Amino acid sequence: MEIHILRLGHRLPRDERISTHVALVARAFGAGKITYCGQHDSGLEDSISRICARWGGDFAIEYSSSYKKVISQYKKHGYSLVHLTMYGLPVQDVLSKLKLEEKILLIVGSEAVPGDVYESSNYNVSITNQPHSEVAALAITLDRICSGAELEGIDFGGKIRIKPSAKGKEFV
Amino acid sequence: MEIHILRLGHRLPRDERISTHVALVARAFGAGKITYCGQHDSGLEDSISRICARWGGDFAIEYSSSYKKVISQYKKHGYSLVHLTMYGLPVQDVLSKLKLEEKILLIVGSEAVPGDVYESSNYNVSITNQPHSEVAALAITLDRICSGAELEGIDFGGKIRIKPSAKGKEFV
Repeated sequence: MEIHILRLGHRLPRDERISTHVALVARAFGAGKITYCGQHDSGLEDSISRICARWGGDFAIEYSSSYKKVISQYKKHGYSLVHLTMYGLPVQDVLSKLKLEEKILLIVGSEAVPGDVYESSNYNVSITNQPHSEVAALAITLDRICSGAELEGIDFGGKIRIKPSAKGKEFV
Repeated sequence: MEIHILRLGHRLPRDERISTHVALVARAFGAGKITYCGQHDSGLEDSISRICARWGGDFAIEYSSSYKKVISQYKKHGYSLVHLTMYGLPVQDVLSKLKLEEKILLIVGSEAVPGDVYESSNYNVSITNQPHSEVAALAITLDRICSGAELEGIDFGGKIRIKPSAKGKEFV
């Protein structure tokens, strides 16, 4: 399955680190690309590119000034749109359907998500109906869609690789 | 199972939002309390307390100027210490042991975690060996330890409750 991410409404400096965490989670859990909207942020792009150069993988980051354009492009290319929101249907109830999709655009908002995102999405999906974090929602969703496969270890082929260790820090 | 969280090295303004997300994930996924170290932050405490007042639950937040003291207190009270780190043993390999514990202190770091935290911990546990996010690591760990029970809905008894919806925002 091909999974891309759309991060809405990136604001500087407020979302610097949250958007970085969103992008890193996307990469670590097997997504191929993130497009972010809101304010352009070359610092965000640089830090993700640096991580990819050291840790490997083909993850891409791209900016767009229009989420509407991104959404319509992905629709045109046959992606199913899955918007993560605390107001949506429980992930455990729609999971079996999501697993049948071949291409998914996972949409994660920041504070105020425009109403047309709810309307355009094929699925509005909640990870609990309590307020928490788009970083956590994205991680849980990717983990569940991929049946935890990424936890077993995607080979990113990076220059740096960690050797799991009971105490301390070890590298391969 | 009783699960508390220790958040290390909170820095202002850098960690404001990440620590808020860590605390909200802890609450939404069933932990009872978070203690944070580093810089004292009444804004963090206020925002978590406000969420609890509106959304319910008994989640507590507390500051300590000494993580060593927190760790030794929890050890004394019989908690098993589980440090989440990308260098640790894969969560899927230690999960069956973690599920047998009655009381767990989950430790999440910020950038540089002191060596004695690795040493003091009963388990150093990784959620993939790739760099991503302590917010995501905490969410996945809580989700797995509790076998996804929190996704099925803890009753927080809050003033506000969401009614899951395919489109838009609905409240009970």
